[in-house]
Amino acid sequence: MKDRTYTVLIESIEKKLRSGELAVGDRLPGERTLAEKYGISRASVREGLQVLNAVGLLNSGVGSGPKAGAIVTSEPSKALSWALRMHIATRSFPVADVVGTRVLLEGQAAFEAAGCTDTEKRAAALERAEAYLQEMDDPALSDARFHFCDAKFHYEISSLSGNLALETVIDSLHLATVSYVEEAVPRLDDWAGVRRTLQEQHRGIFEAVKAGEQERAQERVITHITWFHDLIR
Amino acid sequence: MKDRTYTVLIESIEKKLRSGELAVGDRLPGERTLAEKYGISRASVREGLQVLNAVGLLNSGVGSGPKAGAIVTSEPSKALSWALRMHIATRSFPVADVVGTRVLLEGQAAFEAAGCTDTEKRAAALERAEAYLQEMDDPALSDARFHFCDAKFHYEISSLSGNLALETVIDSLHLATVSYVEEAVPRLDDWAGVRRTLQEQHRGIFEAVKAGEQERAQERVITHITWFHDLIR
Repeated sequence: MKDRTYTVLIESIEKKLRSGELAVGDRLPGERTLAEKYGISRASVREGLQVLNAVGLLNSGVGSGPKAGAIVTSEPSKALSWALRMHIATRSFPVADVVGTRVLLEGQAAFEAAGCTDTEKRAAALERAEAYLQEMDDPALSDARFHFCDAKFHYEISSLSGNLALETVIDSLHLATVSYVEEAVPRLDDWAGVRRTLQEQHRGIFEAVKAGEQERAQERVITHITWFHDLIR
Repeated sequence: MKDRTYTVLIESIEKKLRSGELAVGDRLPGERTLAEKYGISRASVREGLQVLNAVGLLNSGVGSGPKAGAIVTSEPSKALSWALRMHIATRSFPVADVVGTRVLLEGQAAFEAAGCTDTEKRAAALERAEAYLQEMDDPALSDARFHFCDAKFHYEISSLSGNLALETVIDSLHLATVSYVEEAVPRLDDWAGVRRTLQEQHRGIFEAVKAGEQERAQERVITHITWFHDLIR
């Protein structure tokens, strides 16, 4: 990032975020003001803002006019999963490696999720996870919606670990491979049967987490992800 | 990324990367050609290219003129660590969570590194790791260089795991917290003593990996990272 004209803008924003002068929810000045303040062109300001938007640090209000400044946000997994997916596309990053890393992290997250004692947060997350499971039970549910609910179910379980970095990396790795899964599924001989097996595995994970069985929750997550990716490879 | 004018450009590049039509090392057409091809303005093309550059998918030749197109590259950890660091700055992403995740992954990588049987790659990586250790032994070495060698030592050990996704995520998480370490170190009472302890720990990790002691390598990495971050917190 060092040799870009907009580096001065990005470095200043980072400094202000770290000092607390700028926080999530705050609005940046408009493009014209930023251009004057940092002595760079409006085109360079726009480029810098687009980069911050791409990594999930500004909301989509970017570039909506000279007056309406963008709002600071923090959506790391959306941005990181997109970046990871692009790198997977370059093939310098094998899908198997991504899955292996996801298994390790998601196993740990399930272990911690089963041991989570925050009952209120826990109950709400388990309720949401169960609602996704029920939706996935419907054989008439579209594949796209099934994959969506599947990702959400995994996300709810991982988020119970209480570790935001763990949750973000897991979600990024998962989202980064979704398109590979979507491409592979139509090639399977018995996708309807596979969906039923996946659901049995999801229920098993859910029950172990709910019952607080840490080792079992971890084992079941690992078996589930590994089984599915061996199948579609 | 859906509502950007340059989305059409980025999606097309992703598709071409996945089909193999475009590969790392290839040169993209110049800005003018891309603008015509995708029916978007040159400013939008530049924004799209800057975004790809920011996530480590294009080299720094971006925007060097209408003729000289950017070169496709794949440097995920540089880009991801930058994005993670920005999210840590927003405080919606605690440093402790990042460290916890790094401990988990780097422990596993050390375990796998100790079990690695590729003797040629292994010997070369261990040699590089040892050279960094020797450099860090010098009490006169600057702090900046010490941190650099430290990161490189950890990187060499993790890379022996043979899992690129694991290696990239570890490196990203590590680099994302470097500035926090650099800020914390001058506040320590006995940094010279801490440096000696860190070096003893590094040697211990190195010896366990070299001797193929998987559990010991894993334990030592976990103890090392946890000890240091508890100290600077």
